Amino acid sequence: MSALTDLLAFQRQTEALSSVAERLGWDQETVMPRGATEQRAEEMGAMEEVLHERRTDPRLGEWLDGADPQTDADRRAVDLIARDFARTSRVPARLASELARLTSLAQGIWAEARAKDAPEDFLPTLDQVLMLKREEAAALADGGDLYDALLEDYEPGMTGARLASLFDAMRPRLVTLRDDVLGADRQPQPLSGHFPQETQLRLARSCATAFGYDWTRGRIDLAVHPFSSGRWQDSRITTRVVETDPFNCIYSTIHEVGHSSYELGIDPDYAFTPLGRGVSMGVHESQSRIYENQMGRGRAFTGWLFERMSEAFDGLNITDPDAFYATVNRVTPGYIRTESDEVQYNLHVMLRFDLERDLISGRLDTRDLVEAWNARFLKDFGVAVDRPANGLLQDVHWAVGLFGYFPTYALGNVYAGCLNQALRADVPDLDEALARGDATPGTEWLRENLQRHGGLMTPTEVIETASGGPIGPEPLLDYLEEKFGRIYAL
Amino acid sequence: MSALTDLLAFQRQTEALSSVAERLGWDQETVMPRGATEQRAEEMGAMEEVLHERRTDPRLGEWLDGADPQTDADRRAVDLIARDFARTSRVPARLASELARLTSLAQGIWAEARAKDAPEDFLPTLDQVLMLKREEAAALADGGDLYDALLEDYEPGMTGARLASLFDAMRPRLVTLRDDVLGADRQPQPLSGHFPQETQLRLARSCATAFGYDWTRGRIDLAVHPFSSGRWQDSRITTRVVETDPFNCIYSTIHEVGHSSYELGIDPDYAFTPLGRGVSMGVHESQSRIYENQMGRGRAFTGWLFERMSEAFDGLNITDPDAFYATVNRVTPGYIRTESDEVQYNLHVMLRFDLERDLISGRLDTRDLVEAWNARFLKDFGVAVDRPANGLLQDVHWAVGLFGYFPTYALGNVYAGCLNQALRADVPDLDEALARGDATPGTEWLRENLQRHGGLMTPTEVIETASGGPIGPEPLLDYLEEKFGRIYAL
Repeated sequence: MSALTDLLAFQRQTEALSSVAERLGWDQETVMPRGATEQRAEEMGAMEEVLHERRTDPRLGEWLDGADPQTDADRRAVDLIARDFARTSRVPARLASELARLTSLAQGIWAEARAKDAPEDFLPTLDQVLMLKREEAAALADGGDLYDALLEDYEPGMTGARLASLFDAMRPRLVTLRDDVLGADRQPQPLSGHFPQETQLRLARSCATAFGYDWTRGRIDLAVHPFSSGRWQDSRITTRVVETDPFNCIYSTIHEVGHSSYELGIDPDYAFTPLGRGVSMGVHESQSRIYENQMGRGRAFTGWLFERMSEAFDGLNITDPDAFYATVNRVTPGYIRTESDEVQYNLHVMLRFDLERDLISGRLDTRDLVEAWNARFLKDFGVAVDRPANGLLQDVHWAVGLFGYFPTYALGNVYAGCLNQALRADVPDLDEALARGDATPGTEWLRENLQRHGGLMTPTEVIETASGGPIGPEPLLDYLEEKFGRIYAL
Repeated sequence: MSALTDLLAFQRQTEALSSVAERLGWDQETVMPRGATEQRAEEMGAMEEVLHERRTDPRLGEWLDGADPQTDADRRAVDLIARDFARTSRVPARLASELARLTSLAQGIWAEARAKDAPEDFLPTLDQVLMLKREEAAALADGGDLYDALLEDYEPGMTGARLASLFDAMRPRLVTLRDDVLGADRQPQPLSGHFPQETQLRLARSCATAFGYDWTRGRIDLAVHPFSSGRWQDSRITTRVVETDPFNCIYSTIHEVGHSSYELGIDPDYAFTPLGRGVSMGVHESQSRIYENQMGRGRAFTGWLFERMSEAFDGLNITDPDAFYATVNRVTPGYIRTESDEVQYNLHVMLRFDLERDLISGRLDTRDLVEAWNARFLKDFGVAVDRPANGLLQDVHWAVGLFGYFPTYALGNVYAGCLNQALRADVPDLDEALARGDATPGTEWLRENLQRHGGLMTPTEVIETASGGPIGPEPLLDYLEEKFGRIYAL
């Protein structure tokens, strides 16, 4: 009993310190004076060192050996601490610090290379990152599959093979749908005009409120790349404003409200334990996506949004709620994943997934990466990449060592599809509320069935428990075909 | 050499972590969601525990024994680390933690007692705080004077006896001046009107810019009690807005710019060493005060401010720059230290100084404190305290254990008087620049002669070096008598 108490008390402090480091990251991306970068790097370095010492503290091993948890929550907490301890202990300190140093450097090199459209300036560095990540994966895999070992950091329990078969099953239907939509006679009108920042932010705040964002435990700020940050009593969101495209701000906001609501919805008894945060990146993304897409981009909610936007902006060029719904969901060809629509988004992710698996396994060399990317893009999207900034250089993930992260985006969509099917069955009048700008019946269902559990169950367990069946791509694909079939009159 | 290297590297990390804790404090007072108090308390507690462990780390003792510093800066850094280590080691962990717990609690009890005007709700807690502070002082004093031991935390090298003789020398001239001013026939007109928040904040930003605040290393936010926070590349200020009194916002801002400019003006080579922050509370206050008063409330700068305010606010009831200067410097009777003018401010501080010295020595019991306060106030200010919230309950300092802090406010004014005398002699055309809304010649003189040294010299050394003579109250008193003599035509 005493080993367990000591273990959980120690972990509680580690969680609190890690929460401080995350808050510092938020500060850096939102409010920090621009001249403070060196100082912040040193502050973050000091925090990381304290955290690393704690995560590899030999007492953890002793406490874990002596711990005798009696409840489900305690058993799961001990398992999660043990998993983290084992993983951290397997990676040599030299390698961890080398990776931290290199990926911090690589981020700047990537940004410059992208600005100059010069992949040759970035690929040698990417190659170094890749070598270190393969070394890390080998240390973690302990003889097993390298890519699976990396996946474990983002989607515990998932494997590359399962993802590959999931994605292979999805690809044909998505490609067909994409081709049908882009070739359809009926094409929604784009939104045009100038949409002032202050009005967009006011609307974004209303949307966050509509989706139940708890302002007493959060706030909204501007950031270059929107993100959410924090948990328990303090989970903040960020958004961005493009004055020609208010949907960017509005749907970034609803997306981040989904992430934050997950964290804020976790049982407060789990606060500052390993159960007190979202259980995986995929499950996290399921929340942001179901808020943003299945609820936020549905006909019901866009009807309410159409009213609000018609009031807020003079002379909107879309004058009818059905046309507005189609405009919100407009599918256009494009190179950039983050600007993609619901139909094409997963195809972008699958491309990265296959390439990064090949990079980690050694089947693909970074010297052949531009060619491989471009060939695959042409094959999947039917368009040639026009320049590297629109191809290989568009995402920062690989530069910062995030191999194994991309597939969780698509997995989140698959999870959201499963959850949406169960949610609609359980809450048949959800659309009536959404049409009034009130997502409460949906957000409450998600909190009750999924969010409150935090890390208590595995990702698969929590999704299957909430959606009441095995995870599969069909609900998402059916939903997409039905929705876009109507919009485009296929 | 290696012991010194290890010592300074360890200290560097401690400084970085302490800077993180300070940034967290800023967050709490400015942007934190109001529902996050428990979480933040736990985060701060975890940071404090890490910091306390580092400050009492036994390796510090070994490194200090083995360190052989060769430069003035290294010698001073080692001295400052040794002083801090010795002080932290003398206080038993049990006492430190009990003090932290009690003062955190006492702050809430004080706030409630003040709101209810009920000193009896607060005094028993204050008594407990006082007992612990006396115990701490005894541990620190090692047989010496208790109050001096506490002073050492705020104004190293200063003693209660020196302060008492300094203040005794000042009191008669201040009392005479106050009586003359309040009895004068010519009385400045008060400012009246409604001054919208956004306009006040715009003006405050202009004033901060006029005083050379470096916006690439800082920012301004609202806070209930204005403060400045941080150093090196990131020193932020806060201000408050009272819509009937724009001077509150403007002069709070200039005051905090003084504090922040000191931190930002320190030689960057000292960053994250014990030399990389303001050397004492008194020296810090000298900077905020000389910015706010000797420069900011002078005839030259208020002339510029009058123009700006006349443009910003329609129908200002003061229509002439000389009258405006008198209005800015208007002296009125009042109970509250923080709302006091240059003439009476130090009298408020002296009252607290004498009472807290008696509390610490045991000559005064908390049960007699209300009576002692009220009697002294009547004697010094010629008015009876009307209610405890305007008396003993007005300041939070004692509740949170800050015994020995108050006198540094008056000491800062004395230092500012000395510095101003030297500054005016060295930069005879300062007022010409201030009249154009440009404090650069003054801020540059202060940076060159004082700020850049950070903790390299002792407080007395740095003030005497900058002002070119021994510290005394005459320059301040001469300045006050001359300034207010003219304004009030004495």
